[in-house]
Amino acid sequence: MTSLLVTGIGELVTWDDEQPVRRDAALVVEHGKVAWVGDRAAAPTADAVRDVAGAAVIPGFVDSHTHLVFAGDRSAEFEARMSGRSYEAGGIRTTVAATRAATDEQLTANVARHVAAMRAQGTTTLEIKSGYGLTVHDEARSLAIAQQATPETTYLGAHVVPEGSEVAEYVDLVTGPMLEACAPHARWVDVFCEDGAFGADEARAVLTAGQTAGLVPRVHANQLGHGPGVQVAAEVGAAAADHCTYLDDADVAALADAGVVAGLLPGVEFSTRSPYPDARRLFDAGVTIALATDCNPGSSYTSSMPFCIALAVREMGMTPLEALWSATQGGAMSLQRTDVGHLRVGAKADLVVLDAPSHVHLAYRPGVPLVAQVL
Amino acid sequence: MTSLLVTGIGELVTWDDEQPVRRDAALVVEHGKVAWVGDRAAAPTADAVRDVAGAAVIPGFVDSHTHLVFAGDRSAEFEARMSGRSYEAGGIRTTVAATRAATDEQLTANVARHVAAMRAQGTTTLEIKSGYGLTVHDEARSLAIAQQATPETTYLGAHVVPEGSEVAEYVDLVTGPMLEACAPHARWVDVFCEDGAFGADEARAVLTAGQTAGLVPRVHANQLGHGPGVQVAAEVGAAAADHCTYLDDADVAALADAGVVAGLLPGVEFSTRSPYPDARRLFDAGVTIALATDCNPGSSYTSSMPFCIALAVREMGMTPLEALWSATQGGAMSLQRTDVGHLRVGAKADLVVLDAPSHVHLAYRPGVPLVAQVL
Ligand SMILES: [Zn+2]
Ligand SMILES: [Zn+2]
Repeated sequence: MTSLLVTGIGELVTWDDEQPVRRDAALVVEHGKVAWVGDRAAAPTADAVRDVAGAAVIPGFVDSHTHLVFAGDRSAEFEARMSGRSYEAGGIRTTVAATRAATDEQLTANVARHVAAMRAQGTTTLEIKSGYGLTVHDEARSLAIAQQATPETTYLGAHVVPEGSEVAEYVDLVTGPMLEACAPHARWVDVFCEDGAFGADEARAVLTAGQTAGLVPRVHANQLGHGPGVQVAAEVGAAAADHCTYLDDADVAALADAGVVAGLLPGVEFSTRSPYPDARRLFDAGVTIALATDCNPGSSYTSSMPFCIALAVREMGMTPLEALWSATQGGAMSLQRTDVGHLRVGAKADLVVLDAPSHVHLAYRPGVPLVAQVL
Repeated sequence: MTSLLVTGIGELVTWDDEQPVRRDAALVVEHGKVAWVGDRAAAPTADAVRDVAGAAVIPGFVDSHTHLVFAGDRSAEFEARMSGRSYEAGGIRTTVAATRAATDEQLTANVARHVAAMRAQGTTTLEIKSGYGLTVHDEARSLAIAQQATPETTYLGAHVVPEGSEVAEYVDLVTGPMLEACAPHARWVDVFCEDGAFGADEARAVLTAGQTAGLVPRVHANQLGHGPGVQVAAEVGAAAADHCTYLDDADVAALADAGVVAGLLPGVEFSTRSPYPDARRLFDAGVTIALATDCNPGSSYTSSMPFCIALAVREMGMTPLEALWSATQGGAMSLQRTDVGHLRVGAKADLVVLDAPSHVHLAYRPGVPLVAQVL
């Protein structure tokens, strides 16, 4: 039972109610959990000591929205989009075909590579969705592979209607045999609710079937235009409505009233040249915000939470502290986790040591790898 | 006399006229220079072989605009700006005071730390300016320190008029004793030409005095509004006019006609929430563009050229290939260097191996550290 004293912390972000950010702090880790937090001068003794020499220490990032089970890349499609050229692309279908064609070993290796890259950039908890399989077999194996990397796996059979299927028929599959095969490998159920994809009725069917199978709903909502996603999320008691790019006042009120966490994914707006959602408006209405990467090969191929923090500050009206909160505590609330996203006593000891004296540097030094160590 | 064969290059960017980007290529390095470039299948033998397993290889980045000789940081000022709060800041004066107070050893260590971070992100050639000393002694020692890191040092005594000085009096110092002390340590002379800083007449005086002392002019131009900087740069035959945020048609024509390289610094627009310049307009007019970080603690504290590439693609209308060109060959042209910024036979062997199969990933995967190796 060794204990570790981390001391010399120039700035310690715990999200403790009374003192969310401390200066000249120390922290003791025991049994993999935070056992003590306080002033450096008052630190107890421990079996081992690590002095971080004035660095900032923050909770590990909680990335509450990723699509890491895929094969192939779509850089040619990205290049064409950014160059203003049309592209005879399959879009998501390209990724579905590549994912179906990949072996379990290849998909597992891809996930592990991305998870390692994320960890190197400070992400210690992450969610992973299926959604590039779109058959009973491929969705189930996607989730089984994701499950090796995280307990936060999301069944997203209803990502897109696969080629050659009708919506109604596909929803029957998603809510029937596919759900049955996937539920054992998933904690969450998700649907891409958007005009032209799965409408309000289909989304309700997918989410409530998932709930019956013991899964908790989350929704891809209001990304491409003003759709019914947020309202459906509020109605079924979803944990999160992610994207929230296009919201009217009723949507904002629904998120606040139902306690649905709004997941903002600025990498998507960056990589698709879309308008950024207004985080200020959501904060002002009392909505809880989670910041996440949406890491996927089509619309947001970033795995960097610091990059998302920098964008949230530049483009969404967040302060650096609000952005960090949303990327840690907010992400944990989106995943209904109380053990991560903060460093109060009892938290999992997911500590990120920055190569900087303050969390502000995450936005102040954009694009610079500032994660020095992940403990 | 060992030679190194780098092979298995999935994509090789040389900027060769006939084949600027090659697939399945190989390259031979001898005496620190590129000795051979061609198809992998046709590669000659060499003393050593390195297989990069399908990775993209690009020329090292040329960062033609940085202010690395400084002490302190201004994260509190950044935080206030991004949070919409006013801040009783000294702005650049804060950095001047901290730089003057720092020892040579501290400044040298700061420069070395930044240069190492830049190198880890693929920058193999960089320019460094003085400009936070503003006394004869502090400008000269800033340049002597910069000179230890790069031959591309720029005398920027005319960065800002120091507290307690009048413009005319300070220009006399900058063009007199300060120039005399600084010229031995500098290749370039620069001036911050902007309404409210150094006007057209003062800029001309600073640049022509520098020319007389053997320095080549470059100009901070048209950053905060439409000023005379670009026209002065064209008039004196400057190598570069950097920022170019606010240009009228005459400015664009002047850059093209005089062959002045336009330095675009998107980190500044990102970190100050300013409008981005339109690179498309400059390309269309035949202007050469260099992309650079402007790394400094006030307006752009990024040291990442990949981040600037991602911004140039998202915000300035560049294609990924144009952005890479501007960050390598364009930077070399801004510094009037023919030996770097490309990988044609004879070039310095500054090779960057990406953790990606294509240069497109630099923009496609924003915020992700993709530089695997710098050779
Ligand atoms: Zn998504
Ligand atoms: Zn500058």
